[in-house]
Amino acid sequence: MVYKKIDSADVAVLQQICGGEYVKAGDAINEDFSHDELSGIHVFPEVLVEPANTEQVSAIMRYAHQQNIPVTPRGQGTGLVGGSVAVNGGIMLSLCRMNRIVELDPSTMTLTVEPGVLLMDIYKYVEPLGLFYPADPGEKSATIGGNINTNAGGMRAVKYGVTRDYVRGLEVVLADGSILMLNGKNAKNSSGYSLKDLVIGSEGTLAIVTKAILKLIPLPTRVVSLLVPFPDLSTAIRAVPEVARLKAMPTSIEFMEKQVIIAAEEYLGKKFPDKSADAFLLLTFDGNQKEAIEAAYTEAAETCLAAGAIDAFIADTLERRDAIWTARGAFLEAIKASTTEMDECDVVVPRDRIAAFVEYTRELQNELKVRIRSFGHAGDGNMHIYVLRDDLDEKTWQSILAQAFERLYQRARQYGGQVSGEHGIGFAKKSYLAESLGETTIGLMRGIKHVFDPKNILNPDKIC
Amino acid sequence: MVYKKIDSADVAVLQQICGGEYVKAGDAINEDFSHDELSGIHVFPEVLVEPANTEQVSAIMRYAHQQNIPVTPRGQGTGLVGGSVAVNGGIMLSLCRMNRIVELDPSTMTLTVEPGVLLMDIYKYVEPLGLFYPADPGEKSATIGGNINTNAGGMRAVKYGVTRDYVRGLEVVLADGSILMLNGKNAKNSSGYSLKDLVIGSEGTLAIVTKAILKLIPLPTRVVSLLVPFPDLSTAIRAVPEVARLKAMPTSIEFMEKQVIIAAEEYLGKKFPDKSADAFLLLTFDGNQKEAIEAAYTEAAETCLAAGAIDAFIADTLERRDAIWTARGAFLEAIKASTTEMDECDVVVPRDRIAAFVEYTRELQNELKVRIRSFGHAGDGNMHIYVLRDDLDEKTWQSILAQAFERLYQRARQYGGQVSGEHGIGFAKKSYLAESLGETTIGLMRGIKHVFDPKNILNPDKIC
Repeated sequence: MVYKKIDSADVAVLQQICGGEYVKAGDAINEDFSHDELSGIHVFPEVLVEPANTEQVSAIMRYAHQQNIPVTPRGQGTGLVGGSVAVNGGIMLSLCRMNRIVELDPSTMTLTVEPGVLLMDIYKYVEPLGLFYPADPGEKSATIGGNINTNAGGMRAVKYGVTRDYVRGLEVVLADGSILMLNGKNAKNSSGYSLKDLVIGSEGTLAIVTKAILKLIPLPTRVVSLLVPFPDLSTAIRAVPEVARLKAMPTSIEFMEKQVIIAAEEYLGKKFPDKSADAFLLLTFDGNQKEAIEAAYTEAAETCLAAGAIDAFIADTLERRDAIWTARGAFLEAIKASTTEMDECDVVVPRDRIAAFVEYTRELQNELKVRIRSFGHAGDGNMHIYVLRDDLDEKTWQSILAQAFERLYQRARQYGGQVSGEHGIGFAKKSYLAESLGETTIGLMRGIKHVFDPKNILNPDKIC
Repeated sequence: MVYKKIDSADVAVLQQICGGEYVKAGDAINEDFSHDELSGIHVFPEVLVEPANTEQVSAIMRYAHQQNIPVTPRGQGTGLVGGSVAVNGGIMLSLCRMNRIVELDPSTMTLTVEPGVLLMDIYKYVEPLGLFYPADPGEKSATIGGNINTNAGGMRAVKYGVTRDYVRGLEVVLADGSILMLNGKNAKNSSGYSLKDLVIGSEGTLAIVTKAILKLIPLPTRVVSLLVPFPDLSTAIRAVPEVARLKAMPTSIEFMEKQVIIAAEEYLGKKFPDKSADAFLLLTFDGNQKEAIEAAYTEAAETCLAAGAIDAFIADTLERRDAIWTARGAFLEAIKASTTEMDECDVVVPRDRIAAFVEYTRELQNELKVRIRSFGHAGDGNMHIYVLRDDLDEKTWQSILAQAFERLYQRARQYGGQVSGEHGIGFAKKSYLAESLGETTIGLMRGIKHVFDPKNILNPDKIC
């Protein structure tokens, strides 16, 4: 594609739409906007625009569409696959100023938000009112717009599902500037193709989300975590399917290894409650009745012990729970801090294949002579696997990384898994997606992209 | 579109694919296959084919694609909007022989089924194993393939959601015969556009579902229903948002009127436990702890009484519960039996608008001088509204019906509602969908249809 390069006339138009202070060009653009949290792709947009509302987004898109300028929507830039990097230059559309909570509607139990609202601000707003937004991605400073665009999952997916399950409606702006409302506050909908579900997870390539209507449920009053040490990771992970199918469903089932916990301790300067074992499962249960939760974690503890656990610690005080979850929350940053560079594989496999998959990463580590660390959502089959560069030279690193990724994705495919469980495809994982899904499926996706964005100006060169 | 007419050579090819006894042409096709349960559309397919497996479906589609023959997939024909009627003749593809339960996988808690499996057979299979498929559409003799194609909702949507929420993966055959697996058993997926969610609710216009991987959850051990009489329907429905947001979420909240209950009693020849009031709410609670359920329905009963209920009856014996739910299950048939002809409006509105909407149907009944009956899912805003012909002559009936529908859908739109909550658009509601969604949205849907089915042979003239 040949796109129009931004000139001063374009900047003037954008300034007229958004106001002078919300349009920055050239050197005025902060370096932060040239990359995301991990993908290693560095490209500056030609112009950074920060619209205040849907009408401004629509006006920007109308202009970009006329002029054939690529547009990259962006939230907080916490992505890991380059989805929010302006790989073709053009306009970067930061949605961070659109961060109002528009309406809490108690009758329909919905929360209407703008895309720039942070995940942590949603929790802070609804929980004191006894309401719950269950989707729980690790990065709480991500925007809800970003969460919707990657269909972010998180810890509580075992019991509560992922972002998709809590989006009732979306207001979106199309590539040509049209504004559409997809569904709304309705709890059911069978009125034509679900365009809402198509936009969810589309990484800003089909439309720009300008408002989201989120489904809330009543906040459970009690939460208890159970930390279960195991002699080794394989034993731990083999216990997962048994725990996951207990009557009292766990909210989350995370796995963690001693090495990663130690890295988190060092990173945080805070002690983890127990490091006696090589591997741990971290289980959480929630509900409203004390007796019911006690029964649930007792049954889970017994199941784990029968499956080879060394012990089971109840973290029912806020302090202990915080110590554990703070460590869990710091895993990504801690691993990142422990090496020079790294890349991530966010595969998801059916739950009964996790044990075999994690064992395979061990084999690979030995075979390729590279450090591989992993943690993740054992309960839903979604692992975050990090290949670490350490002191490898550039050529060796690129070669080993390519081999490791090729093998990991191939194994995931063999197990009926998918390339990404929750972080998306963006720019970095495109070739792996193409290989995983095959030509026919990718062809359908390209066709859909063309229907929504025939001039290919919306976040081009992402996904497919 | 001009399609190829079926000739004896086509029949011979289809017989070669499926075996002679599974291909019927002309007069050999039973009258049942010319219509569905309600829509009033009567067209015979030119040939009826009953494939046994995915490969046969693929071979049929490959042939139809080459020859430009329209194909209408069909389950049990229990639809209400003509979605499974072969309005262009051609091939009717009955999926009823593909009715095997392929695999129950306890590790991933998934059930893999062929599309012709009946909803009631799924319950019968999984519940004795302590597992639960929560989607609960009224028509238990519908196929799961049909449920997926309309994104059927049902009673338990308040707490558990709709069919979409329980479909992990789909095997589909495209218009040209290609076979694709969309997702699989994975609990999370952010790997490109969600084609699975696009196929769900697409009424057989994008692809033919040949296998579905369903998500199961643990079966709650206890279920209690609460029958709550109210002096009138408005008071009853106004209580719904308050009940729906209680901590202990009800599984379902149905509304019913005395007139409809009496019709059901007459139809079934069975007594309903209480007819003292003009309107009722029927609430259900489920769970595993006796005390928790008791606390839940006690709180709900108190909330209803404070909102104007006359009383609250607990139906905790199987006998009483069956009497109530059998009546509820017979509403559609009972209303149908009480008149000469009828048509249905399956609107969904945000939950806080149901009271106003039901009141509007009353006004309309008086204004248009036509009987209108309704029942439905108060808890999720999805109503089934029936306009009854009784002894109106054809011309008057068509005119009144058109006016009634026009006004009902207009009001739904005004309330932020949608044309169909769970029955789909099919052939009968196309014009209302077009009016409700507008040109841009319908244009996107047509574009998507063209990507999947450029020759427009898959269930043509449905949805958009």
